[in-house]
Amino acid sequence: MKVLVIGAAGMIGRKLVESLLQKGELVDKPISQILAYDVVKPEFEETDGIFINCRSGDLSEPGEAADLVNDKPDVIFHLAAIVSGEAETDFDKGYRINLQAVQYLFDAIRAQNYLPRVVYASSIAVFGAPFDDPIRDDFHLTPLTSYGTQKAIGELLLADYTRKGIFDGIGLRFPTIVVRPGKPNLAASGFFSNIIREPLAGKEAVLPVSRDVKHWMASPDSAAGFCIHAAEIEGDKVGPRRNLTLPGIAVSVGEMIEALGRIAGPEAVALIREEPDEAINVIVSNWPREFDAARAISLGFRCETSFDDIIQAHIKDTRGEI
Amino acid sequence: MKVLVIGAAGMIGRKLVESLLQKGELVDKPISQILAYDVVKPEFEETDGIFINCRSGDLSEPGEAADLVNDKPDVIFHLAAIVSGEAETDFDKGYRINLQAVQYLFDAIRAQNYLPRVVYASSIAVFGAPFDDPIRDDFHLTPLTSYGTQKAIGELLLADYTRKGIFDGIGLRFPTIVVRPGKPNLAASGFFSNIIREPLAGKEAVLPVSRDVKHWMASPDSAAGFCIHAAEIEGDKVGPRRNLTLPGIAVSVGEMIEALGRIAGPEAVALIREEPDEAINVIVSNWPREFDAARAISLGFRCETSFDDIIQAHIKDTRGEI
Repeated sequence: MKVLVIGAAGMIGRKLVESLLQKGELVDKPISQILAYDVVKPEFEETDGIFINCRSGDLSEPGEAADLVNDKPDVIFHLAAIVSGEAETDFDKGYRINLQAVQYLFDAIRAQNYLPRVVYASSIAVFGAPFDDPIRDDFHLTPLTSYGTQKAIGELLLADYTRKGIFDGIGLRFPTIVVRPGKPNLAASGFFSNIIREPLAGKEAVLPVSRDVKHWMASPDSAAGFCIHAAEIEGDKVGPRRNLTLPGIAVSVGEMIEALGRIAGPEAVALIREEPDEAINVIVSNWPREFDAARAISLGFRCETSFDDIIQAHIKDTRGEI
Repeated sequence: MKVLVIGAAGMIGRKLVESLLQKGELVDKPISQILAYDVVKPEFEETDGIFINCRSGDLSEPGEAADLVNDKPDVIFHLAAIVSGEAETDFDKGYRINLQAVQYLFDAIRAQNYLPRVVYASSIAVFGAPFDDPIRDDFHLTPLTSYGTQKAIGELLLADYTRKGIFDGIGLRFPTIVVRPGKPNLAASGFFSNIIREPLAGKEAVLPVSRDVKHWMASPDSAAGFCIHAAEIEGDKVGPRRNLTLPGIAVSVGEMIEALGRIAGPEAVALIREEPDEAINVIVSNWPREFDAARAISLGFRCETSFDDIIQAHIKDTRGEI
């Protein structure tokens, strides 16, 4: 079992590769090698029995994709994208990285003429307001960002290439992943992680939106789990609709803060400073609040069932560092 | 007012150009010139006051799109595509003509840095079974053909380029257009037209499906009318969801035949020979039957209200020829 992870240096990619190294097998077959690829060279520790090859490169360069699939990896994870904000400010780069590179990959697989499983990271950004609440599996895709548009196009290509027998694709619409490790960033969604991670580390965090803002979230562990489940699921069970809205939990900022209080006490909660930011409020008001992810759940995808669990997963991840 | 019609030699394109020549104006401004473009050179009669330039070419050739929009046409109709059957058998050609050429056009408009109205022909093939019945405006796009996939991707690009202020696009999901003029063809949908056109001309026609097959249809006149209405509609009224399922009438084959009997008598109906074709039945069973086209109707799009009107429109079109 040869595995290719594109985007292996990202938050989900790292978690995924670590899980694969630990698990040692996929679809009941031992993993012999992992090619971990990203724009910056991923770093992983050697593991007995699995050859791990870390490489850096730009998938949007012609020829690069052909090179990556040259030895016909059995499972290909495509987790590489530039984020929503950058795709919005740099139109050309967004289409080049988030669409053109995906087309290069899909066509490179076609040229190899075999039938790998392809797990493609999409996003709930494929949906655009106004929404039903919760959003059903058959709700239309009307993205309101270039990032969401690029992901939705990738989904359509994935389904068509799968239908034509070029590969066996599963597209995953990830919830917002919380708690992101690392430093606070300027992404509009950053505060969802900041208001948990920073107080747990004894630091202040800014909350730019009101406490009744509700959003759809899962942990980094769940994200890696979704990828592995998608690699192992029977394609026939999925049918022709290859893109799945993943389970998450719909939780309000107020509920997140209550969970933080239960786990880390009122002194952690006191570190959250409310500083309403109208621009962020407008952006967030166009985001999905809640889904009915019936199809993915019926196909066995699972995540946390409470925000307390998401916080506990983060504490476990950062043990010794906070 | 300068108008560009890409696909001007096709059934809808011809109707559209003829309507524009007759109407003489668009969005309350006199039309000064029409560039009529297709893979085969379109032919139109000269009209006083409107310069009509007929050109042939391949929009999927690099540079061609830039050439077409070089003098900044105010309204651009994109009606050019290879049909569903051909896009299915020739994967590369389908993506080149139905997707790559569209991207070239959109990017050529971007390079001109102005804000034309773009009317883009999509199709109800963006929907794939199983459906709700009727299909709502917010039902998801899960095409089951490469043609439907390419059209759905064009829709997404159209909405994103519009959102970014590159042009002002309206995407139109055409119903099946009946009665197609000309000779019977081998398209799976051909019989919808054949069973009306041929008997009206005193010729036999084959019906390969059962009489309870129901489908969503409008006339060629309505198709041209949809294009003109889309060119003239206020963009602000449409909002960010730029792709519209057009009105049509949901009619069963049995009801079509009854209408034929009312208009042309039992001797016309007797020319229809029922010859069930399992392959065509399977294809057609995956097609949409009926839509609730509430948005397009609220935006003023109109078509026939009975199949009798569709037959009468065809008789008027072919007067003296049948």
